[in-house]
Amino acid sequence: MQGQNQQQAYDRGTTIFSPDGRLYQVEYAREAVERGSTSLGVRTEEGVVLVAEQQVRSPLMEGSSIEKLHKVDDHIAVGSAGHVADARQLVDFAREQAQVERLRYGEPIGVETLAGALTDHIQEYTQTGGARPFGVALLVAGIEDGEPRLFETDPSGTATGWSASAVGADRDAILDDLETNYRPDADLDGGIQIALQALASVGDAFEPSEVAISTIDTETEQYRTLDHDEIEAHLDEIEFEADDE
Amino acid sequence: MQGQNQQQAYDRGTTIFSPDGRLYQVEYAREAVERGSTSLGVRTEEGVVLVAEQQVRSPLMEGSSIEKLHKVDDHIAVGSAGHVADARQLVDFAREQAQVERLRYGEPIGVETLAGALTDHIQEYTQTGGARPFGVALLVAGIEDGEPRLFETDPSGTATGWSASAVGADRDAILDDLETNYRPDADLDGGIQIALQALASVGDAFEPSEVAISTIDTETEQYRTLDHDEIEAHLDEIEFEADDE
Amino acid sequence: MQGQNQQQAYDRGTTIFSPDGRLYQVEYAREAVERGSTSLGVRTEEGVVLVAEQQVRSPLMEGSSIEKLHKVDDHIAVGSAGHVADARQLVDFAREQAQVERLRYGEPIGVETLAGALTDHIQEYTQTGGARPFGVALLVAGIEDGEPRLFETDPSGTATGWSASAVGADRDAILDDLETNYRPDADLDGGIQIALQALASVGDAFEPSEVAISTIDTETEQYRTLDHDEIEAHLDEIEFEADDE
Amino acid sequence: MQGQNQQQAYDRGTTIFSPDGRLYQVEYAREAVERGSTSLGVRTEEGVVLVAEQQVRSPLMEGSSIEKLHKVDDHIAVGSAGHVADARQLVDFAREQAQVERLRYGEPIGVETLAGALTDHIQEYTQTGGARPFGVALLVAGIEDGEPRLFETDPSGTATGWSASAVGADRDAILDDLETNYRPDADLDGGIQIALQALASVGDAFEPSEVAISTIDTETEQYRTLDHDEIEAHLDEIEFEADDE
Amino acid sequence: MQGQNQQQAYDRGTTIFSPDGRLYQVEYAREAVERGSTSLGVRTEEGVVLVAEQQVRSPLMEGSSIEKLHKVDDHIAVGSAGHVADARQLVDFAREQAQVERLRYGEPIGVETLAGALTDHIQEYTQTGGARPFGVALLVAGIEDGEPRLFETDPSGTATGWSASAVGADRDAILDDLETNYRPDADLDGGIQIALQALASVGDAFEPSEVAISTIDTETEQYRTLDHDEIEAHLDEIEFEADDE
Amino acid sequence: MQGQNQQQAYDRGTTIFSPDGRLYQVEYAREAVERGSTSLGVRTEEGVVLVAEQQVRSPLMEGSSIEKLHKVDDHIAVGSAGHVADARQLVDFAREQAQVERLRYGEPIGVETLAGALTDHIQEYTQTGGARPFGVALLVAGIEDGEPRLFETDPSGTATGWSASAVGADRDAILDDLETNYRPDADLDGGIQIALQALASVGDAFEPSEVAISTIDTETEQYRTLDHDEIEAHLDEIEFEADDE
Amino acid sequence: MQGQNQQQAYDRGTTIFSPDGRLYQVEYAREAVERGSTSLGVRTEEGVVLVAEQQVRSPLMEGSSIEKLHKVDDHIAVGSAGHVADARQLVDFAREQAQVERLRYGEPIGVETLAGALTDHIQEYTQTGGARPFGVALLVAGIEDGEPRLFETDPSGTATGWSASAVGADRDAILDDLETNYRPDADLDGGIQIALQALASVGDAFEPSEVAISTIDTETEQYRTLDHDEIEAHLDEIEFEADDE
Repeated sequence: MQGQNQQQAYDRGTTIFSPDGRLYQVEYAREAVERGSTSLGVRTEEGVVLVAEQQVRSPLMEGSSIEKLHKVDDHIAVGSAGHVADARQLVDFAREQAQVERLRYGEPIGVETLAGALTDHIQEYTQTGGARPFGVALLVAGIEDGEPRLFETDPSGTATGWSASAVGADRDAILDDLETNYRPDADLDGGIQIALQALASVGDAFEPSEVAISTIDTETEQYRTLDHDEIEAHLDEIEFEADDE
Repeated sequence: MQGQNQQQAYDRGTTIFSPDGRLYQVEYAREAVERGSTSLGVRTEEGVVLVAEQQVRSPLMEGSSIEKLHKVDDHIAVGSAGHVADARQLVDFAREQAQVERLRYGEPIGVETLAGALTDHIQEYTQTGGARPFGVALLVAGIEDGEPRLFETDPSGTATGWSASAVGADRDAILDDLETNYRPDADLDGGIQIALQALASVGDAFEPSEVAISTIDTETEQYRTLDHDEIEAHLDEIEFEADDE
Repeated sequence: MQGQNQQQAYDRGTTIFSPDGRLYQVEYAREAVERGSTSLGVRTEEGVVLVAEQQVRSPLMEGSSIEKLHKVDDHIAVGSAGHVADARQLVDFAREQAQVERLRYGEPIGVETLAGALTDHIQEYTQTGGARPFGVALLVAGIEDGEPRLFETDPSGTATGWSASAVGADRDAILDDLETNYRPDADLDGGIQIALQALASVGDAFEPSEVAISTIDTETEQYRTLDHDEIEAHLDEIEFEADDE
Repeated sequence: MQGQNQQQAYDRGTTIFSPDGRLYQVEYAREAVERGSTSLGVRTEEGVVLVAEQQVRSPLMEGSSIEKLHKVDDHIAVGSAGHVADARQLVDFAREQAQVERLRYGEPIGVETLAGALTDHIQEYTQTGGARPFGVALLVAGIEDGEPRLFETDPSGTATGWSASAVGADRDAILDDLETNYRPDADLDGGIQIALQALASVGDAFEPSEVAISTIDTETEQYRTLDHDEIEAHLDEIEFEADDE
Repeated sequence: MQGQNQQQAYDRGTTIFSPDGRLYQVEYAREAVERGSTSLGVRTEEGVVLVAEQQVRSPLMEGSSIEKLHKVDDHIAVGSAGHVADARQLVDFAREQAQVERLRYGEPIGVETLAGALTDHIQEYTQTGGARPFGVALLVAGIEDGEPRLFETDPSGTATGWSASAVGADRDAILDDLETNYRPDADLDGGIQIALQALASVGDAFEPSEVAISTIDTETEQYRTLDHDEIEAHLDEIEFEADDE
Repeated sequence: MQGQNQQQAYDRGTTIFSPDGRLYQVEYAREAVERGSTSLGVRTEEGVVLVAEQQVRSPLMEGSSIEKLHKVDDHIAVGSAGHVADARQLVDFAREQAQVERLRYGEPIGVETLAGALTDHIQEYTQTGGARPFGVALLVAGIEDGEPRLFETDPSGTATGWSASAVGADRDAILDDLETNYRPDADLDGGIQIALQALASVGDAFEPSEVAISTIDTETEQYRTLDHDEIEAHLDEIEFEADDE
Repeated sequence: MQGQNQQQAYDRGTTIFSPDGRLYQVEYAREAVERGSTSLGVRTEEGVVLVAEQQVRSPLMEGSSIEKLHKVDDHIAVGSAGHVADARQLVDFAREQAQVERLRYGEPIGVETLAGALTDHIQEYTQTGGARPFGVALLVAGIEDGEPRLFETDPSGTATGWSASAVGADRDAILDDLETNYRPDADLDGGIQIALQALASVGDAFEPSEVAISTIDTETEQYRTLDHDEIEAHLDEIEFEADDE
């Protein structure tokens, strides 16, 4: 609808509207998210599950250092897709918020509260001049009042709640798979299977080292990372599409 | 009247006038409002009603997290249309104003006072450089001195009072319907019917999950959100246009 | 005298001179004033009168909330034309000035003093970078030392005193009418008639709801707004141009 | 010497030199001065005289509010030509300087000192970015050590002393007339005649309401404004050019 | 995929996204890294090894002053590639961080903590306006909890952990060699051999003065620089490609 | 060597280098100096002499107010050429520096110290953004430790010492004359003759009112301005070029 | 590799990378250095020698005021090439650093420490917006722990150590000569000869007034400037190229 030339006029300034009411820099930041490898989150009866693809570019690279899953507090974690350095900044911001909450009120921060603080922070970078938006989408997962919660933030600074969701490459196809296969009554292992199957639905088979899995249990309210053997056991159970895909 | 090229010269800078005295960035922010789903407000004899369309893009998305109706204080709520992240910022700003008023004067903030504080804040983003306008319109509803009040704010920073109004997509058509069907002597249920009928007049039938309804009662001065069954009961009563519309 | 292209070179930056010594942004802000509906002021023997057109775009809109006449202090009021949100900012600024004057000196602010403070504020937005001029003209009316005073401010930041004046749409035609019909010895009712007749001279008949009238009495030094019946009575007395105009 | 295109390259930025060492924004501000109506100053044996043209655009306009002659302190006044709102800012600045001088040193500010403070202030707006120059020239007149003094400031921030001078429209022609007719031994009335005759030499006959005259007497060191009858008496004495000029 | 002209539109502003979600300034900073001479790091059983090419442009130049290996604290060192002055700034920043950690907590800073602090600092220069990204990549090597650690930072502000890695010119070819020849069970001397062999694999034979070697021993946790004779002894052991390459 | 178009690319920004390492804004400021009337300084055995051309544009203008020679302290004075308002700012700055020196150390400021403080100040305006360079060159003359000193500052912020020098129009020709005729063993009157003869060498005969002369005596260390008769006496002694030149 | 047009796109902004990872403003600042007259430094067994060309443009100019050799502290001096006013700023900065070191630690500042502080300062002007790089290269010479040291700084903010070096015009040719003729076992007089011979190798014969020579003795750690006769004696010993070169 917009010609090439007219679009260029509006996407250079970071924070101005186009004649049809769009913010191009925010839309380009969404492109940065889609260029990133995928993270998924699934809410289950027993807690919440986060799964992330990890592109190990070299056998010399430490897997741990490229993880896309980050513990924010005992009961909250964050998955991300997009510009890795931007994600780090937001994770640091989230940890600070959680710490401040504990110091001020002596209580763990609520998952929704944290997602709101993050999106307030993100929105400011889309309105005030002199900075670009954050090129990252987050999955904020945790336990709040004994219930698993899962929120997603986008580069515009909006937070939405989900039963199961994905950010990053192939998001739409993965959401299609999740909508078909999600069962709210799954246990944690079931939730992991739902996430891995959805991830497998869009690509080739992957190695245990190419995926990270974390859970936060409703009962213990503790963040936990699965080890290589546990991941391998889960991968053995899922079906991959044919290699010639 | 303005050619394409000349218009481009004035809409890149956020806050300058065009030769015919217009602020294009503010007009583009209004486009962002019209791209948003609709919120309606109706003043009745018994209180004020807010109704909002909700676009649930996926069955996995939590309806609550995309609500466009926000409680600001016991006696005041806000509906919005447009850029969702901008709306959040203004709701946060409104809540702060309400809290400050209670702390300073020990009294609930007036609805008109709040609308004024919001539009002062919004106007600054249209005059001072280095930021874009807010791409959102609000309906500010509440009880003040025992009377229901309803104000609307726009991206230029203007507040106007209404008996019944709507912001967002299809605003003009909905206002036409409201002008025909509004009755000042309606009770709260009647107000809800007026709003739903106006919303139905511009589109296909919608599900209870696709609409949010809140009321603020003149007597109790309390914000209240209708549940799924109550919404369904209201929807059963209204007539939708033919599907082939 | 200036070609189209050359003019464009100077009207993008907010605060620089063109080669012929003009400030285009200020001139464009004047266009914004002329796009606004009209406000009039008339000084009489008994006090000062303000009259404003009000464009009630919908029967659902509260007339009071679109009033262009604003009480600043007991003895001073402001009428405006142009960008409505900008007018609000200036009215807020004026109220603050009046309050500060009472707090510091225990005295009501002078009308000329207030007009000067307003234009100092307005001028700054035409010289210092990073902001646009105010797109609004004001009529500042009040009682000072027992005398009615009437000042007009423009977007350049100039204040001028008048016996009777108008800002906004059709200003020149209304001034022509006022110059013919103004009588310094009119009483308040006479002043209202002079203003309404001047307004009527440039358009179709209008309803009481489409006009606001306020007076400040020299004796009581109190701002007073006329109600619907009083306005209707005044309108009955004036002659409108033929409908086919 | 400079082509049209090359000139444009240097006159957009407020404060940079052109290749031939000129500051175009300052030169354009001088154009704004020349667009303004004229003010004149004449030093006499008995004191100093200021005369200003006043364009009364409407009989409804208060003459006093468009005066271009401003009392700064008992013994100092300022005449101006150019952008009216800019002149107001400089007059305010001058009054502040005079007040500060009295508070700090218990003495009236010197005329040359004041002219220097004004031009320091004006120069800053021609060197530091983010603002435009002042589009106004001032005549600073007063008594210092029992002597009448007359200074002129220009938009570059230069102050020069004069026996008699003029700023604004037709400056060069008026200076020609003054150079011919100025007599240092004139009394105050003689000085007024010299100024009015010079003003008359460049235009049609004018009414008493179209001119303002002030004097500062060497003996009393008091600023004094002539009333309508006094001005009329002076005008009766001077000769105007033929009407068909 | 992007034409030449379109790319230019996005790479002038430091911190905005291109339509396909890339940050060109960051990518150009990576080019600055690749223009720099190479630094390598290798983790071994006994500690961690850093090796850097040094371009001694003249026999009059002091080798020590162009070293690319910098001691940050007793137990941490940094190798760099890219813009030399930028590297100095980051080394200064790292030393400050290490000092602050010792002062605040009485403990040596962790290697991962330091890499994180560095990348937070680096990321800010890619998001906030008014500055360019750092044109440098670092290898952060040290001992943490008795274990050798090796991190790499890039101009986007991302830190990754490695068993062995290289930054600067010929990075990809050197990584290929390292992936083939790296043995985690090497001792420090073995690690040096692995690094030198990898460096030799991409170029001509080099002199002891053209390379710097440092180690941090797991046991002593002390940074140590090899002298000329030690380097010569190591060089004698490795094989260079044929001269005619 | 630089084409017209390429040059334009570098002279708009105030403080950036051109590809051949030049600062065009500084060079344009030098043009502003050359457009100004000339000031000369001559060191003699008895003290230092300053001479300045004064363009009295009108017989009504006070000669004193356009003087280019300014007393900074008892023992130091400044001559200038170029943008007059800029010169005033630097003279004010110089006076402040002299005053501060007396307050802090109870001693007169050194001539070289003052020239250094001035050029530090001037240099900042050529490196930091948001301002233009000073369009003025100064001659700083005074007595230091019983010796006459003479320094020259330029718009780049460089100070150089001279036996005799000139700034402004016709500088090169005047320097040629000075190089031929300067005698270090001249007394003050001789120095004045040297300066006037050099000035006369480049133009027509001039009137006493068109030149200002000051001296600072080594013995008294006092600034002194010559009166009209003294100047006339000196002018009678020098030879002017033929009128038909 | 880069076309003319593309290069222009990157060299206007002070601090951004070009697509091939270069900082053009820094490279242009290096051109400013090469336009400057030459300074040389030579480390000897007895101390360190600085030699600078001085372009005495007129016999009226004081040689001392254009010296390029500056004493920073008793034991440290600086030679410079490039933009003279920038050099002054850096010399002032260096003197302050030396003073602060003495005040804080009661010790003379180290030569390497000072070179580092200078380059940190210089680098900031290449990364943070709103300023241009320093257009100057320095030779920092001094005694540290009883050893002569010689560092060179460049406009990018890099410091390197040298046995003998040169900055400014003809640098490469002079370095060639120094590489051939430098002897580390020279005494101070020998070092001066090495430097003068290198300078003579690139140009015509020069007068004692056209060169400045300073030494810092290892034993006394005192800066000392050679007088005219000493310089003449040294010049008598060196051989110049044929005049017809």
